[in-house]
Amino acid sequence: MPSVTPSPRRSATRERVLTAASEVFAEKGFGGASVEDICERAGFSRGAFYSNFASKDELVLGLSRQHAEATVARIRTAASRPDSTPDDVIRDVFAALSDDARRNDRWLVLTTEFTLHAIRNRGARRAWVSRQREIRSALVEVVDEAVASRGLTLPMPTEVFVRAAMALANGSATQRLVEPGALEQGELERTVLPVLLAGGGGHGHGTGA
Amino acid sequence: MPSVTPSPRRSATRERVLTAASEVFAEKGFGGASVEDICERAGFSRGAFYSNFASKDELVLGLSRQHAEATVARIRTAASRPDSTPDDVIRDVFAALSDDARRNDRWLVLTTEFTLHAIRNRGARRAWVSRQREIRSALVEVVDEAVASRGLTLPMPTEVFVRAAMALANGSATQRLVEPGALEQGELERTVLPVLLAGGGGHGHGTGA
Repeated sequence: MPSVTPSPRRSATRERVLTAASEVFAEKGFGGASVEDICERAGFSRGAFYSNFASKDELVLGLSRQHAEATVARIRTAASRPDSTPDDVIRDVFAALSDDARRNDRWLVLTTEFTLHAIRNRGARRAWVSRQREIRSALVEVVDEAVASRGLTLPMPTEVFVRAAMALANGSATQRLVEPGALEQGELERTVLPVLLAGGGGHGHGTGA
Repeated sequence: MPSVTPSPRRSATRERVLTAASEVFAEKGFGGASVEDICERAGFSRGAFYSNFASKDELVLGLSRQHAEATVARIRTAASRPDSTPDDVIRDVFAALSDDARRNDRWLVLTTEFTLHAIRNRGARRAWVSRQREIRSALVEVVDEAVASRGLTLPMPTEVFVRAAMALANGSATQRLVEPGALEQGELERTVLPVLLAGGGGHGHGTGA
């Protein structure tokens, strides 16, 4: 009787390939890493690789999905703590996000390399744009809930706030990688985002008598 | 009598090499471009190249100097117009910066490639950090003057404001390159920076009776 590969096993294979890919990308860069390198690290044949991923690009999209899901879950937990002020939320979010600095640094480098690849490659660009949209829409939902539950109003569309937060997080992390120690972890976001949250007015923001 | 190369001629040589380098980097990427490619484009020998630049890295540092000087001059002009409100200044600054979109896009890609190179290369990192410090300190000076002359107070150190503005500008331009049309030119900066400028309070910001 021919066996049907069970879904948990397939999922474990994907996980193992993604972990190997993440290591090889960190060592050789996205451009320098080959599918062969990744198969060798994972201990899989090229056949097993290609039955799970069509290309190196799909590995980055898979890693992005893992990273975004973990990040959004952490932000959601930090933002849903009752009675926390916007400043608490932002402090808690960045404390939660900074507990795996090495993983975050790796991801920043890979995402930057893939962005350059996407700028020069139409297929990668299309996939990357749709990935970014998914991430932004998950974040817009979290921010909308957090803002509404505290009776705040953002001074700009939530989508623009999320794009600005992503740009600040990215810029801050890049500046820290180039010049360690120049900025504290999350310093730009923790300084700028509370001013934006306060800028829209609303109630429940420390103005109660 | 042995001739001493006159400074204007040397400077014209440097300009020609930098222009050629900028074109070749745009076509092949920083990693893909060779000194030979750049010499061929500029119509110079390798000897002429190396009497002006020690390496490919120095070309990027030279281009950065050109780009930063032009950018800071444009910001200074926009910020020094008398009787302009902070919103006017930010609008004028981004109008001034957006008039050469193709050059800016090219520079964004090159600067991103070089940042990745600097993360992996100690010598490049040291030079890049010192270049970024010079740029930030020129911008801090312009912002301090613009803010003081309007009686404003920033809600954060000027250095952090400048780092945030750079992160927003970079993130916004990158998002636009990946997904043209998703954001207007300068949209993040024009939306976020006025909120930061208003967030510090101060007088002369439209509150006069």
